[in-house]
Amino acid sequence: MIPAAQIIGIGSTKYGKHTTTSLVELASMACEAAILDSGIDRDRIGTIYVGNFLSGSLNGQEVIAGLIAKSLGISGIPATKVEGACASGGIAFKHGCMSVTLGDSEVALVVGVEKMTGYSTADVTKSLNFAMDQGVDGGTGITFPGLYGLAWRSHAEHYGTTRSQVTSVIKKNKNAGEKNSLAQLPNAGANIIPETYKMIASPLTLIDCCPISDGATAILIANPKITRSSVKVINISSSVQTSGGSNIADRDVLHSFPATQKAGYFAMKEARISFSDLSLVELHDCFSIAEILNIEDLGLIPSGEAASWCVEGRTKTDGDLPVNPSGGLLSKGHPVGATGLGQIYEACKQLRAEHENQVKGAKTALTHNLGGCGIACTVNVLEI
Amino acid sequence: MIPAAQIIGIGSTKYGKHTTTSLVELASMACEAAILDSGIDRDRIGTIYVGNFLSGSLNGQEVIAGLIAKSLGISGIPATKVEGACASGGIAFKHGCMSVTLGDSEVALVVGVEKMTGYSTADVTKSLNFAMDQGVDGGTGITFPGLYGLAWRSHAEHYGTTRSQVTSVIKKNKNAGEKNSLAQLPNAGANIIPETYKMIASPLTLIDCCPISDGATAILIANPKITRSSVKVINISSSVQTSGGSNIADRDVLHSFPATQKAGYFAMKEARISFSDLSLVELHDCFSIAEILNIEDLGLIPSGEAASWCVEGRTKTDGDLPVNPSGGLLSKGHPVGATGLGQIYEACKQLRAEHENQVKGAKTALTHNLGGCGIACTVNVLEI
Repeated sequence: MIPAAQIIGIGSTKYGKHTTTSLVELASMACEAAILDSGIDRDRIGTIYVGNFLSGSLNGQEVIAGLIAKSLGISGIPATKVEGACASGGIAFKHGCMSVTLGDSEVALVVGVEKMTGYSTADVTKSLNFAMDQGVDGGTGITFPGLYGLAWRSHAEHYGTTRSQVTSVIKKNKNAGEKNSLAQLPNAGANIIPETYKMIASPLTLIDCCPISDGATAILIANPKITRSSVKVINISSSVQTSGGSNIADRDVLHSFPATQKAGYFAMKEARISFSDLSLVELHDCFSIAEILNIEDLGLIPSGEAASWCVEGRTKTDGDLPVNPSGGLLSKGHPVGATGLGQIYEACKQLRAEHENQVKGAKTALTHNLGGCGIACTVNVLEI
Repeated sequence: MIPAAQIIGIGSTKYGKHTTTSLVELASMACEAAILDSGIDRDRIGTIYVGNFLSGSLNGQEVIAGLIAKSLGISGIPATKVEGACASGGIAFKHGCMSVTLGDSEVALVVGVEKMTGYSTADVTKSLNFAMDQGVDGGTGITFPGLYGLAWRSHAEHYGTTRSQVTSVIKKNKNAGEKNSLAQLPNAGANIIPETYKMIASPLTLIDCCPISDGATAILIANPKITRSSVKVINISSSVQTSGGSNIADRDVLHSFPATQKAGYFAMKEARISFSDLSLVELHDCFSIAEILNIEDLGLIPSGEAASWCVEGRTKTDGDLPVNPSGGLLSKGHPVGATGLGQIYEACKQLRAEHENQVKGAKTALTHNLGGCGIACTVNVLEI
């Protein structure tokens, strides 16, 4: 879709542990920040979309869209929770764009939120597994680290991908995260030796996996007619949502996700740009290997070459194609439903030239949010 | 919203117990029936919305929109689950209308599904309670029958509503349900003595409550440009979604839901019709008393008079204003996420003059779907 809509405000909590803050409170904090950032009157908000995955199964709280609307004092408007596993935030964004483009609302508030800490790892893992088809992969006992471990092995078999190549992704993202005050796990990248961490699902060790996170990010989307000249607006050049098979048996190869390939293709086509136009990319590095797979699925770098680019530093903040200058999910954290909007938040900061890890002269950004093992995907192109 | 969209196909499972059928299978059955009914090629479906409430918390399965798309052989398109408690189905319908009106898809498939049987009543009740604010009402131990019991008491205090008046709603809906082959609990209405049933939450007895149900209903929505003359299409004159406060303390009176009042007002206004134009109404009688409250909130009958109308038979299938000629939730069942679409299915059957309990000369129908204790609502006006 080519939205007739702009981003006029952004807000986010830090990602990490928010022990004493409820799900609705977290979301409301991000929304209040976005409303403040935009300078608009909240009464102009005509709809709210909430991206969330685990509120029912882990937190025991549904109808959160209505509860957040009430907390913000804007009850009465349509309030909708959308779910597509880890792509829930991106799906919320797409629907805010739809509502504004259609004219069903003048301003749409979209917020992604998740509260995952304070539960046992077993409970969180069990709920995360609800993103698998329980009748097939989910019934085998495999986990998402397991699925991405298989993806890594498959990629290595095809392209000879090595441990040290994948380690370069972690180091890049941890270094970038050190400059991002919203990040949950910034670490000195130079000191990381993945082999010294606990093995989770070979070859993935603990440091190859994004952390369990709480957090919320909100974005305000508006009809361009109402934009004030005083606000640094971001143009939404395309917003694409796709689905794909989730089970291992659905896929021709384990190291590629058709939902990403399709969403990436249409997002670039509808935005009428080429890869060389991109100033930066924020993509779904839920695991270290995922960054390499996603770069190749998006067509940013030819298949089999992404790992080398990373080793050569070409995907660093000052490289040919900066990837995850925010630190990505590996460093920033992954509050599931918030992540797709967190990526858009980071991209907006870059395009507004306000980022703590600024890509010089950033004009065009692509964001990529992936759910499950490729069952849902969203890709956006944003420009200033 | 005034959609530029028509209903071109409908399909539904029977509501009741589907012990050996999975959630995804149930939804797929309804979708296949709707596709068959429409006569269109499934490749023209450009998006799928799934209305569902309990798949995560009760069934342990999320990403059902993507799984249903795959089961239907239409993977790749945007696949989105929407949640707004018992209004999830109505919200799915609204979003199918949005997508088609916007031109983001030529044909939208919307399906509501729920699988609630096979669990203990305690587990189902616990999950249903996730539609309350867990920090407020949910923490008190009250259940939805309890909340509607309070609503009845409040209505009785204001208007003197009696047990026998409310019993007339049950008898009407059970009698209507006897003619509906999709209904879960058709009973001979003449024999019902609510006082002989188990007390659930005074004054509500078991027969005042809708049953726990499995079921799925699907609707195909299309751009009017592609409609074939051979299909009996239904025009969507308006589709409105609202939110409201959920907690007892949010409400001025316990027997009225502002979300319904607002949605009803705008749905009628946008459809440019008056109440006298309505041939029939399918509304959210999750409890017997709810039918009376909803009739009054929608403005169909002045406040305090709905109970008398019902006693006088004026809301029967052959009355002045037929309400729930399908049998309603009380008789047909309430597979939560499916209900909003089940109401639209029943209204379409009436407008196509194909209903087993046909309202003579039906031309215009209103459907009303309510979530939680008024936290989400959708109202549609359909015409032939």
